[in-house]
Amino acid sequence: MADNNTRNYLVGVDLGGTKILAGVFDSKLQPVGATKFSTKAQRGPDAVLERVARCVSDAIDECDLDVKQISAVGIGAPGAVDPEHGEVIFAPNLGWKDIAVVKSLEKRLDIPVFLENDCHICMLGIYEQELKSKPKNVVGIFIGTGIGGGLIIDGEPFTGANHTAGELGHMVIDVNGPKCNCGNKGCFEVFASRLAIFRAIQSAIKNGDKSELTQMLGEDLKDLRSGDIRKAIRRGDKVVEKIVEEAAEYTGIAVANLVNLLNPEVVVLGGGVIEALGDEMMPAITKSAKSHIMPGLFKNVEIIASKLGDNAGITGAAVLARDKTR
Amino acid sequence: MADNNTRNYLVGVDLGGTKILAGVFDSKLQPVGATKFSTKAQRGPDAVLERVARCVSDAIDECDLDVKQISAVGIGAPGAVDPEHGEVIFAPNLGWKDIAVVKSLEKRLDIPVFLENDCHICMLGIYEQELKSKPKNVVGIFIGTGIGGGLIIDGEPFTGANHTAGELGHMVIDVNGPKCNCGNKGCFEVFASRLAIFRAIQSAIKNGDKSELTQMLGEDLKDLRSGDIRKAIRRGDKVVEKIVEEAAEYTGIAVANLVNLLNPEVVVLGGGVIEALGDEMMPAITKSAKSHIMPGLFKNVEIIASKLGDNAGITGAAVLARDKTR
Repeated sequence: MADNNTRNYLVGVDLGGTKILAGVFDSKLQPVGATKFSTKAQRGPDAVLERVARCVSDAIDECDLDVKQISAVGIGAPGAVDPEHGEVIFAPNLGWKDIAVVKSLEKRLDIPVFLENDCHICMLGIYEQELKSKPKNVVGIFIGTGIGGGLIIDGEPFTGANHTAGELGHMVIDVNGPKCNCGNKGCFEVFASRLAIFRAIQSAIKNGDKSELTQMLGEDLKDLRSGDIRKAIRRGDKVVEKIVEEAAEYTGIAVANLVNLLNPEVVVLGGGVIEALGDEMMPAITKSAKSHIMPGLFKNVEIIASKLGDNAGITGAAVLARDKTR
Repeated sequence: MADNNTRNYLVGVDLGGTKILAGVFDSKLQPVGATKFSTKAQRGPDAVLERVARCVSDAIDECDLDVKQISAVGIGAPGAVDPEHGEVIFAPNLGWKDIAVVKSLEKRLDIPVFLENDCHICMLGIYEQELKSKPKNVVGIFIGTGIGGGLIIDGEPFTGANHTAGELGHMVIDVNGPKCNCGNKGCFEVFASRLAIFRAIQSAIKNGDKSELTQMLGEDLKDLRSGDIRKAIRRGDKVVEKIVEEAAEYTGIAVANLVNLLNPEVVVLGGGVIEALGDEMMPAITKSAKSHIMPGLFKNVEIIASKLGDNAGITGAAVLARDKTR
């Protein structure tokens, strides 16, 4: 039964370009309940932050708790953030620049709020909840619309000199490859993100390749999701299977580059694409990584898919809230 | 004048495929003197270790010191090493496998000996002597016959889970590029190492390009060294200049990948190629890095060439010896 005299609970928020997820956790980081809102970024930062606050309040209420029982809220936001000042500096897929997230949410919620970059937050959640903080060095690769990363070095989250470490999606792996949104050519993200996979499928269909997906969604592949791709592969769609396998091979090369450089105990893959297509992609990722990691450097490296899925963000945000208040 | 009653001095050894360098340092890490031997790896590990011991003794004697005044010897060796057990596990360019370096040298010298990988050692020397241990996060890129790296993370040397971190020479930057000795295609090393630059020059000349180098060394470019390349460029050799510039551009891409991933304060380049061609390469390296680092992530990152040159190894080895005995 909920103890309503002390602030024993934490809320973790995952603020994304399309949805807001708020999860309530007890002091042992066990999930109590969660609420999901759509982000509606087009309404502007103030409206989005109002939605975040409401999502948090609703989640607390759904768990039969009172806001007075929440010790802190952690929030992961996409893009460049300044955790010290509680600001999102630049978040292209929210259309945000210099937004005082913490100040705004603390005013609305009257609870301490702590902000971090969403990839660092996911890494934190996976490290604590899934890996039980055991390995000392971990590389997290999060594949969704884009690709981001998180690092654990010597048992601590590593964010670099200006808090921007982990941008592994823009690691150039093919100098002469296709152009990336960032301006470079042949970034990892160009080959393996959800957008990259979608683009390759659309272009294959345009070139006359036959795919289950057109039967499922129509010629223009309206509302294509990663889950549809999984379904198509399971129905024997060789065109889609090959495209996903290629994305997995590129991912393996990125994994190898990171293992050669950082010699971690664990490489963990997460994000929407891995959640939907992990079973399809992981064997090819591991195979490609193994064949690209330097001889002798593969021993003791585990390459795994996170099981936390969508909950990595809210879990990590709750870990942040706990760490900042204990 | 040398105080010959206490062990106030340190020796740092840089064991390479072609030469052995032993440097004597005082307790404040100021260099006192150094001796150079050729390695003669073809004579086998025992003969090489005898030469290392003799090189150390000679260096001590040259400095008018006695072995009793040396507190410890540090040694950097190429390839995979096991510092804990004092063994070189695998060093292809010495032809060594499982060689008990520390045991052998301690027996011959009767001083404590400490072993590390040569790239980690160079990073340590540059970090302490040149950067005064000020930046918290540093990436070191050492370009010689091959390319290796060293990392400083949160003010400490970072060597990963199995002591193999820093293998940035085998970061794939062109998946469809030329084959590397490691088995992969398009490793950074294939584009920017001394061997890569030499190979490109030889192939250009074979294809009929005119170069100052053939006048300097003959058609077969016998005994070509990095210094000859510098001379040729200064004499206006456009063919060689372009090849070196291309190597610098690839190096800039590798720098960008590392900055995006690790967000260091300093990227320092060293090794024989940079020592000989730093003036020629650094502007192009910096330009290429800048244009490949993600927007906003370049601020506060310094990209510099080490001034320690050949002394980085012996200095770092002396730092290791000091750190292990104090």
